Amino acid sequence: MPSAIRFRHERMNFGDVKLYTGTACPDLAASVANYLNVPLCDRDVVTFPNDNLFVKLHSSVRGQDCYVIQTTSAPVHRNLMELLIMIQTLRLDSAARITAVIPYLCYARSDKKDQPRIPITARLVADMIEVAGADRYVTMDLHAGQIQGFFSIPGDVLTAFYIHIDYLRSIKDRMQSPVVVTADLGFAKKARNYAASLNIPLSFIEKRRMGNDAKAQALTLIGDVYDRDAIIVDDEVDTGGSIAQAVNLVKDNGARNVYVIFVHPVLSLNAADRLAALPVTEFIATDTIPIPPEKRALFGDRLRILSVAPLLGEVIRRANEGRSVGELFNE
Amino acid sequence: MPSAIRFRHERMNFGDVKLYTGTACPDLAASVANYLNVPLCDRDVVTFPNDNLFVKLHSSVRGQDCYVIQTTSAPVHRNLMELLIMIQTLRLDSAARITAVIPYLCYARSDKKDQPRIPITARLVADMIEVAGADRYVTMDLHAGQIQGFFSIPGDVLTAFYIHIDYLRSIKDRMQSPVVVTADLGFAKKARNYAASLNIPLSFIEKRRMGNDAKAQALTLIGDVYDRDAIIVDDEVDTGGSIAQAVNLVKDNGARNVYVIFVHPVLSLNAADRLAALPVTEFIATDTIPIPPEKRALFGDRLRILSVAPLLGEVIRRANEGRSVGELFNE
Amino acid sequence: MPSAIRFRHERMNFGDVKLYTGTACPDLAASVANYLNVPLCDRDVVTFPNDNLFVKLHSSVRGQDCYVIQTTSAPVHRNLMELLIMIQTLRLDSAARITAVIPYLCYARSDKKDQPRIPITARLVADMIEVAGADRYVTMDLHAGQIQGFFSIPGDVLTAFYIHIDYLRSIKDRMQSPVVVTADLGFAKKARNYAASLNIPLSFIEKRRMGNDAKAQALTLIGDVYDRDAIIVDDEVDTGGSIAQAVNLVKDNGARNVYVIFVHPVLSLNAADRLAALPVTEFIATDTIPIPPEKRALFGDRLRILSVAPLLGEVIRRANEGRSVGELFNE
Amino acid sequence: MPSAIRFRHERMNFGDVKLYTGTACPDLAASVANYLNVPLCDRDVVTFPNDNLFVKLHSSVRGQDCYVIQTTSAPVHRNLMELLIMIQTLRLDSAARITAVIPYLCYARSDKKDQPRIPITARLVADMIEVAGADRYVTMDLHAGQIQGFFSIPGDVLTAFYIHIDYLRSIKDRMQSPVVVTADLGFAKKARNYAASLNIPLSFIEKRRMGNDAKAQALTLIGDVYDRDAIIVDDEVDTGGSIAQAVNLVKDNGARNVYVIFVHPVLSLNAADRLAALPVTEFIATDTIPIPPEKRALFGDRLRILSVAPLLGEVIRRANEGRSVGELFNE
Amino acid sequence: MPSAIRFRHERMNFGDVKLYTGTACPDLAASVANYLNVPLCDRDVVTFPNDNLFVKLHSSVRGQDCYVIQTTSAPVHRNLMELLIMIQTLRLDSAARITAVIPYLCYARSDKKDQPRIPITARLVADMIEVAGADRYVTMDLHAGQIQGFFSIPGDVLTAFYIHIDYLRSIKDRMQSPVVVTADLGFAKKARNYAASLNIPLSFIEKRRMGNDAKAQALTLIGDVYDRDAIIVDDEVDTGGSIAQAVNLVKDNGARNVYVIFVHPVLSLNAADRLAALPVTEFIATDTIPIPPEKRALFGDRLRILSVAPLLGEVIRRANEGRSVGELFNE
Amino acid sequence: MPSAIRFRHERMNFGDVKLYTGTACPDLAASVANYLNVPLCDRDVVTFPNDNLFVKLHSSVRGQDCYVIQTTSAPVHRNLMELLIMIQTLRLDSAARITAVIPYLCYARSDKKDQPRIPITARLVADMIEVAGADRYVTMDLHAGQIQGFFSIPGDVLTAFYIHIDYLRSIKDRMQSPVVVTADLGFAKKARNYAASLNIPLSFIEKRRMGNDAKAQALTLIGDVYDRDAIIVDDEVDTGGSIAQAVNLVKDNGARNVYVIFVHPVLSLNAADRLAALPVTEFIATDTIPIPPEKRALFGDRLRILSVAPLLGEVIRRANEGRSVGELFNE
Repeated sequence: MPSAIRFRHERMNFGDVKLYTGTACPDLAASVANYLNVPLCDRDVVTFPNDNLFVKLHSSVRGQDCYVIQTTSAPVHRNLMELLIMIQTLRLDSAARITAVIPYLCYARSDKKDQPRIPITARLVADMIEVAGADRYVTMDLHAGQIQGFFSIPGDVLTAFYIHIDYLRSIKDRMQSPVVVTADLGFAKKARNYAASLNIPLSFIEKRRMGNDAKAQALTLIGDVYDRDAIIVDDEVDTGGSIAQAVNLVKDNGARNVYVIFVHPVLSLNAADRLAALPVTEFIATDTIPIPPEKRALFGDRLRILSVAPLLGEVIRRANEGRSVGELFNE
Repeated sequence: MPSAIRFRHERMNFGDVKLYTGTACPDLAASVANYLNVPLCDRDVVTFPNDNLFVKLHSSVRGQDCYVIQTTSAPVHRNLMELLIMIQTLRLDSAARITAVIPYLCYARSDKKDQPRIPITARLVADMIEVAGADRYVTMDLHAGQIQGFFSIPGDVLTAFYIHIDYLRSIKDRMQSPVVVTADLGFAKKARNYAASLNIPLSFIEKRRMGNDAKAQALTLIGDVYDRDAIIVDDEVDTGGSIAQAVNLVKDNGARNVYVIFVHPVLSLNAADRLAALPVTEFIATDTIPIPPEKRALFGDRLRILSVAPLLGEVIRRANEGRSVGELFNE
Repeated sequence: MPSAIRFRHERMNFGDVKLYTGTACPDLAASVANYLNVPLCDRDVVTFPNDNLFVKLHSSVRGQDCYVIQTTSAPVHRNLMELLIMIQTLRLDSAARITAVIPYLCYARSDKKDQPRIPITARLVADMIEVAGADRYVTMDLHAGQIQGFFSIPGDVLTAFYIHIDYLRSIKDRMQSPVVVTADLGFAKKARNYAASLNIPLSFIEKRRMGNDAKAQALTLIGDVYDRDAIIVDDEVDTGGSIAQAVNLVKDNGARNVYVIFVHPVLSLNAADRLAALPVTEFIATDTIPIPPEKRALFGDRLRILSVAPLLGEVIRRANEGRSVGELFNE
Repeated sequence: MPSAIRFRHERMNFGDVKLYTGTACPDLAASVANYLNVPLCDRDVVTFPNDNLFVKLHSSVRGQDCYVIQTTSAPVHRNLMELLIMIQTLRLDSAARITAVIPYLCYARSDKKDQPRIPITARLVADMIEVAGADRYVTMDLHAGQIQGFFSIPGDVLTAFYIHIDYLRSIKDRMQSPVVVTADLGFAKKARNYAASLNIPLSFIEKRRMGNDAKAQALTLIGDVYDRDAIIVDDEVDTGGSIAQAVNLVKDNGARNVYVIFVHPVLSLNAADRLAALPVTEFIATDTIPIPPEKRALFGDRLRILSVAPLLGEVIRRANEGRSVGELFNE
Repeated sequence: MPSAIRFRHERMNFGDVKLYTGTACPDLAASVANYLNVPLCDRDVVTFPNDNLFVKLHSSVRGQDCYVIQTTSAPVHRNLMELLIMIQTLRLDSAARITAVIPYLCYARSDKKDQPRIPITARLVADMIEVAGADRYVTMDLHAGQIQGFFSIPGDVLTAFYIHIDYLRSIKDRMQSPVVVTADLGFAKKARNYAASLNIPLSFIEKRRMGNDAKAQALTLIGDVYDRDAIIVDDEVDTGGSIAQAVNLVKDNGARNVYVIFVHPVLSLNAADRLAALPVTEFIATDTIPIPPEKRALFGDRLRILSVAPLLGEVIRRANEGRSVGELFNE
Repeated sequence: MPSAIRFRHERMNFGDVKLYTGTACPDLAASVANYLNVPLCDRDVVTFPNDNLFVKLHSSVRGQDCYVIQTTSAPVHRNLMELLIMIQTLRLDSAARITAVIPYLCYARSDKKDQPRIPITARLVADMIEVAGADRYVTMDLHAGQIQGFFSIPGDVLTAFYIHIDYLRSIKDRMQSPVVVTADLGFAKKARNYAASLNIPLSFIEKRRMGNDAKAQALTLIGDVYDRDAIIVDDEVDTGGSIAQAVNLVKDNGARNVYVIFVHPVLSLNAADRLAALPVTEFIATDTIPIPPEKRALFGDRLRILSVAPLLGEVIRRANEGRSVGELFNE
């Protein structure tokens, strides 16, 4: 019945990528655009005197495949609202498909009620992104992978794990009897993946509250770091308090050099100062959150930023072309 | 069939009012609580170092009738998120009914696409409030009454009009041949209501852009203010620019004393300084947005704040008891 | 990675326009079809003896880009239901995209609760259009632009303003010292746009209720029309009562020729007779609502209908092709 | 844990019944109110000159248990819209629960796609009732019981079957060898229930289209009516065409007296004249749809209207009190 | 405006068909794939020891047009869950469109509340299919066509009627004075369609409960089967009880050969044994439900399975290409 | 304004608890009913020959506060569907509030996409429970607490942790130098809570895949168990494979007595045999899943079942009365 010479594609054609970004991570967005070899689309983002934001797109997005790159680090609420407004604007202008690309998703640690009468703010954020009109989302290294299930819309949760491992392998020669250490028992399974990929041992730091004093903590190192190079791994570094404790504990237990590797450089308060003062050989992070130059300067050349731009760019390209993202990794 | 002695209420019983507030308008919330003679419920609102907010209720709200009083003036996005998180927290704790009481609703001026490729952020805000889990909302003097239709949930949009009129009547003896003036043609209909209620004439200020210069404006006074006391009315005052123009124009046209009356004292940037410097006899506003003491001080005794707390309190009481709000006014 | 010779479009391809119309505005629909050079698709619309409507499409619309042109003037409810049934029929037949093109949207004046215990019927109508399955909507000159925010789906709210201005400019030579007059303070801002575009002054008519008699009104002309040609502007004319008052008032105040220009010729009850009897030089309306020949005849050549068909047609074309509608205007 | 003397109800208390009605079936609504011994609540229903409807409630319904009685016979679309607007008005006024009581539900015959490219309008109507804000619905004798599944909200679909049977039993003595006859094979199962309840035989009339002429039909009587009183049963009578055919066919086959019994007296076009002219001993219907006096007059005393008001009233009472409706019948 | 040489399709292009199947009807799925000349896509379906199912697709479906063929016969709940999980998996992998192809839809007889306090499970099943993420559905011969209205998504409800009729016509020469008989009054209308298409008479079997014994039934044959070949028609055969009764009754009433034709061979419990023992010349069913070989063997060559694979395949092809399904039939 | 003597409750009154259960955990349900001193409500649950389920409630639940206790262990899909059908039945009978009480929630381990092209079935299950009509849910010890965020409805996720700790404390005297061991790094944080509450040390078992063989695993014990009693903790035990490995490993490392404690006794395949054969002093589980007597017998007196019935019962009571659940624990 269908004519044999009928012109057929293998899949739906969404047209070219239209790349937008808010004001939260301009450098990362530019790198992604550069990777994709498409320009960032022009738009105005204005803050009115009354603190209200305003967005205006410079050209029509009707029937187009749009991506909004916006990280949601501090100022969290402004950055989040900027993302939501951009999504709604694209939707009201009849975009064919809108993908929110959020390198660092805020509120990911508020992901369950582990005490009564508290919110699950990560679900609220997912709901807000959906109600604004996103059709898909892309994000990286969620605190808990389960947050994927907070969204009704499909998404890609990427990981910097392979980027990390590639880098650690590249410097492994420099290390002596390295051991992976995790300071967060909730990260134990992922730490194991680091250790297994590098084929090195794993140790844990266990924290317990002492007595009634909420702040007093007893730290125990489970496993062996003596005369070894310690690689402390985590998903994000906020105030740097846990990292500082961990560095000191492994040092006290006889570790040689210490490396600290993590994905999201939140670096709140005086975290940068605190970390820079630690006896750490190298800090390794990614650019899911921009680090202001003055903070970067504190680390000298001890801070290495691995860019996630090629990963995000490739995922956007494949989403646009309807190709597999999973193929990117040799699972 | 139903037994005659069956105990019957006239309407559903929602139990006592549970009053919560965020951190945006503590004084107003305290006044409402005072009016209602119920305490503000204890809760923690914490800002974590990473700028994320956290809320914890001190007691259970299962099956209770909860009200969250939170204005959404600057910092707009933080205040809005605080409201949303509180609503979600109440919902997840199985509150029977949650009413968002928002004296000043942010983004109300982003209410339509009057140019292409822009958002309707007020609708987004309404969607966010609903998706967080509010069952009802109460707000005051929306820039456009139509914003009611942005909500799927029922709500009460109150007005300070009667409070204003009562006050203006109380000082009418002090005025000479008063005339109502509006500087915003979108406010023309409401300005007419002021004039009609006070039984005095009405004038308009028309603004037109001049030539290609976006900032150059020609102002025309339509109607008569000569040798009259001018009452300049508006719904909110943001940077005070329009008000300053209006005051100067009516003065140039021979007005005697000038009164400026409005609902929402947004007072962005240096608005307070700018207004305080104007030849205005009295500024009259409400407490839908708190004015910091240092800004209030600039006005000396020329600034009068009329409280909306009794109005909000009475509406909450009536909502809780299932009684009419409309009865509050002699419509 | 993607092969360089990959065949790429700039945007999603929705295929040809499929144009449907109900029974409410056959002439306008035919004009749009003519502009687009596509036929109106065949369908049956049957009214059963029991007053139920029935629709049957003559050919499949699977995966197609469909437009239903249907105005919702009187008989309002039948016309609205016809629109809804056509939308559902297209949806159940798996249309790819359905756009409701509603030149005149009914119930647009029921857009807020300005008194207690009344509906916001415009929101109900928007909800009905969405629940029937429309993906987008196109309409013209809503009574309040905010009604856009009643829809969750994207849409284009077009205006006959530029059509009006073009026409008024074309006859401006015939006028003497023209002045724009508005009889509805809610239309003040739009009236200002007419005046500004024509570079002529603006006047207002203020209505006040007198005493307790609901019908007694005092009319005041604010601004100057003496010895001038008056251009009375409005968005729609229903019974013609306000227009008649306005015409008489400007005449009483010394106006020379009077022009009446508006978008939607609702012309309820005996409006046509009433208007035709007025001392008006020319009535200018559009064809968003069909005027029966016998009513048109009453005006002789004093009624000019400016067609919105090219505008609707062009917007449909651009929506189908994924091009900007905003470009149509030199904003 | 719970104090022993705690005051406990058996179920949630919805307060008193608030009864509203549109303009479609005032007599039935009054009968229901009378049965319940509660007044119909005051409200305005206004038709504006532009054919738009307007509703205003005279008193607040906050937190109350509201019922809107409105049948949806012709003018179908106006009656339906009136119902929807009343529901939305109650919802926006914060009613605790809204039940749409629709004695005759329009479009119930448009309940499936039995040919391609047609609507399922009954589902659309259900969606409209839900989107307007009804929490529950009550209706009677749907053409297909499956329409219950079109609603997401719970509802009670009542039947006049028991009212019919009670009446038929009361006149059974007058009949001779009665037989139930159905003219609609889709009604065969229900007709069997009539026959079984009366313990009498059942016959069918089969219609077949003849050749290509859409209107030519061959009628076959399957089963025996000779020298018997025939009781022709159906759910509704529209134009009366099928009934007329059936009466003539059973008469041709030797039936004695003929009784025609059905629920909904739609009586479109000249159905009343047509039926009144038939050799039928008695027509039995209900008051789910009002029959204008002039039509009733045509039947003399051969038309008996059995009221559904006590049934609707009792169901409303039980819904309000949270008691079982099923108990009403000895199922 | 649009360039004349613009490349245009007639409709949206969904790309190639991606065909998936669960484990419920592998042979039918293979036949459909064969008809379409596309392979069934590889996927794992695993049952874990804890009875949980797991699905993994072997290749990406981003932007593709996917079809899941899965019948929902016993084990009903496992088969249904398998379908739902496959749909969700496709959705989360960003398929462009997902069509659930369900040859036999479970729970279709639970389609209304014909007694109080029971479910409408067919609606629940429809809701589950939608919430899993299906965009469309295809099914066959629903017990009640109205179940289409339980879905919000569009769908094609196909019928084996034409397949049946074609087959019956092909063997009509072998029959003597055939008559269609239905044992289910709810199937009366469809039985009439069989009779009319074959141009032969129609008879009914009426069942009535006798006295208070729930199981005692009186069966009456209405119409004539004496010395005729009887074609007993139904939509599905479950335990075979009704069919056995019907066969015996028509035999008792003098029928010659008996044919039993139906769509869905549910064949629960010992239905196959029971049927095989009946004096029936031929049983005719389809392959919407697979019959295990050991059951088929019981019938020898008296069981004929007509395949619905070409019908399903053609409908999938047309859905994919955006062509009409209705054209398949000469309606 | 409100009269002082007005009768006021503190919160909404939901009436008495109506307790229903499916067929999955009759003993637990009976224990809960016993704790609450309310009967389990009568209902039929029927499995038809075609494997379809049918539910009928024996009495009306209009306006009542209903709880359905149903665990979702194997047969998982039947038990889940039974739960869903019961929820829908309650909803369609107009229950005021429906709470799904699911002691063990199926598919909780399918909670994220940790590889591409797989489902998140736990979210699907949550969606199904919501679409069936549950207003709230109660469950216990989810594999990941984040699954709470998969639900839009509020819920209580309870834990047997305190029950476990109470029991372990009661037998602590019998133990010698006990140590907590976890065999699942994803359970590390919870294992820490056990250790901290008992004030004893913590050890981990790390598993790594060896080479390319998917099944070959290297197990490493991190921490010290020599000459200590080991308490192996987990949330559920499925096939018992991990537990067997862990028991053997700690024994190999010199542990004395071994205790195994977990919440959900899934005990798939031959898990009971396998576990019973291990050198374990005592197995401690709860009754969230019933263990068949023949399996229990295998353990002799080495299996202790701690009942969660008082916990579920108390939570139901408090939910019904609108009191805090959090108060149950001394957080």
